[in-house]
Amino acid sequence: MTETTVQELQVELGDRSYPIHVGAGLLGSRDLTPWVAGKRVMIVTNETVAPLYLEKVRKNFPGCQVDEVILPDGEAYKTWDTLNRIFDALLENRHSRKTTLVALGGGVVGDMTGFAAACYQRGVDFIQIPTTLLAQVDSSVGGKTGINHPLGKNMIGAFHQPRCVLIDTDTLQSLPSREVSAGLAEVIKYGLIRDARFLAWLEEAMPRLTALNAEALTEAIYRSCACKAEVVAQDEREGGLRAILNLGHTFGHAIETWAGYGNWLHGEAVGAGMVMATDLSRRSGYLTGADQARVEKLVKSAGLPILPPSGMTPDNFMNLMAVDKKNLDGQLRLILLRSLGEAEVTDSFAASDLASTLAELCH
Amino acid sequence: MTETTVQELQVELGDRSYPIHVGAGLLGSRDLTPWVAGKRVMIVTNETVAPLYLEKVRKNFPGCQVDEVILPDGEAYKTWDTLNRIFDALLENRHSRKTTLVALGGGVVGDMTGFAAACYQRGVDFIQIPTTLLAQVDSSVGGKTGINHPLGKNMIGAFHQPRCVLIDTDTLQSLPSREVSAGLAEVIKYGLIRDARFLAWLEEAMPRLTALNAEALTEAIYRSCACKAEVVAQDEREGGLRAILNLGHTFGHAIETWAGYGNWLHGEAVGAGMVMATDLSRRSGYLTGADQARVEKLVKSAGLPILPPSGMTPDNFMNLMAVDKKNLDGQLRLILLRSLGEAEVTDSFAASDLASTLAELCH
Repeated sequence: MTETTVQELQVELGDRSYPIHVGAGLLGSRDLTPWVAGKRVMIVTNETVAPLYLEKVRKNFPGCQVDEVILPDGEAYKTWDTLNRIFDALLENRHSRKTTLVALGGGVVGDMTGFAAACYQRGVDFIQIPTTLLAQVDSSVGGKTGINHPLGKNMIGAFHQPRCVLIDTDTLQSLPSREVSAGLAEVIKYGLIRDARFLAWLEEAMPRLTALNAEALTEAIYRSCACKAEVVAQDEREGGLRAILNLGHTFGHAIETWAGYGNWLHGEAVGAGMVMATDLSRRSGYLTGADQARVEKLVKSAGLPILPPSGMTPDNFMNLMAVDKKNLDGQLRLILLRSLGEAEVTDSFAASDLASTLAELCH
Repeated sequence: MTETTVQELQVELGDRSYPIHVGAGLLGSRDLTPWVAGKRVMIVTNETVAPLYLEKVRKNFPGCQVDEVILPDGEAYKTWDTLNRIFDALLENRHSRKTTLVALGGGVVGDMTGFAAACYQRGVDFIQIPTTLLAQVDSSVGGKTGINHPLGKNMIGAFHQPRCVLIDTDTLQSLPSREVSAGLAEVIKYGLIRDARFLAWLEEAMPRLTALNAEALTEAIYRSCACKAEVVAQDEREGGLRAILNLGHTFGHAIETWAGYGNWLHGEAVGAGMVMATDLSRRSGYLTGADQARVEKLVKSAGLPILPPSGMTPDNFMNLMAVDKKNLDGQLRLILLRSLGEAEVTDSFAASDLASTLAELCH
């Protein structure tokens, strides 16, 4: 596909501002050398993505010396040992502080490559080329990078912004449909927390999105990134507002942990989690039953679960949510919807309402 | 000793500004809780320092829950595995993002603790309590943190500024005199690169410094930190000016590598390296023979070598300096003295002058 539907977004973060290019057919065509300070590039990707896109992406860096490191695929490899393979490759090939790392892959590749860039010689440039919908609408904006520790996910990391992000919607053609749905969970989230018009557009566009229509995907990704960029610009280091991006995530993390990581995709858990947050928002008097029905219908139409895993109990939720790292000082904070398109972080919901939500939705 | 000679310096870095307290008797007496955001502290120290100062330092944090992690001592342990012990301790004790790490020890403890603070949950606060002269005058200012990689020293790290630095000159009483001398190399460096008056003061004060006089040490440390702070404030991320802090270091790194790390202390190598840089500065027409004699006399009076290791050849230097990480793009850059108290970064010295310096000083 040729570049027909390209949209460009500038993430405004002062001297760390950067552009996101979204469209079909950008891999292998868009010249990325304006965002490469030196003449050397290290592409970091994984075994699954490399055979599909690595050769193509080399063409995005004409005139550069392009090295590569290919990591094993999967969240299980988001560890120091794998990260160290990036450092090994950089040092063996004598990359200097002027090098540019390129993350080609999903969220795991992006998080690890970004963290490697944050740490290599105390910080070098990096470019993101996310190839999953989740990575495109989530990790493209925000600068969160890191690895897992045996005692906790994403416990070791840094905030490090890319120089630019290139999103080619064509890469979604090779993505399992379950992962497309998981990415759509985050897309829906942006509508719910901040943008009622986008939410309405999603209700209409969902069939085209699940059918991977390039125009619709470009629009959905663009608006998702724009929404996240607005939030992050106001709260780069996650002091306050940014927490609304976690709508459904506290419930979702509990689901992921209970199910065993990987059994439920993050986006699937967030899908069910958003329905749970919506239910609690209704019980708290913020949403109507009709609002809740709209949310459930939209989540379902994206191919996502609207209930937690069968067999998971309210007690499971309460125990797992208590240790979630977002809960500082032992206080359980949740993101609730004041209305469709407006979210708040709060710890002042009624415990009995939360209990009712869990009792009703656990099955 | 009671607090008699305390000096305070503010390192100006916008919203990352922080104070350095220098004086005798500060361990166990100065209240550091104003720089602790939460109520929890994790002191990171090593086997050598812990029995000397750990209990005392707990008293610097009245009312806080103070945990500790004690690492093995030595540069050989400046690795990911050791760093991970800090993360293990933080996670096992459920430290949140509001925790404060405290680095109690020399440069290795400071670098690792700072890097752990930079990475734990993408960044938490830390306080430096350096107990070696080198750490007090070098790592107290600049925010450089990190660990070694098998293929290179300090290759993995971050810029992360402490909330405050506490320097107790009494800790130098327990320091081997060879390490005091090594620290004095960096003190002399500040005079040479930026402060002719301080240099003159050092010539007069050196006997009191090597005798560990508290007043003299406080003054020397204060002025060293002030000098470094001025340079860092102008160039926080090491784009240009900050390179002058590397006077003597390119020669010095070659010496350290040639001798095998640990056989020559960093400061000893820098001592000889500064004399070599001074010699080249004279050959380049910047310094007089009398200037050079002053530098040699001062370095010697600090108990430092003024010549590279016996047996090290000009070829050894040329080969080792070529791979030094400061040399981007294959160009050898050195710090030369335009005069005593003024340095410049340059690659425009005559190759024949460098050859003469190496031929003359190698023995």
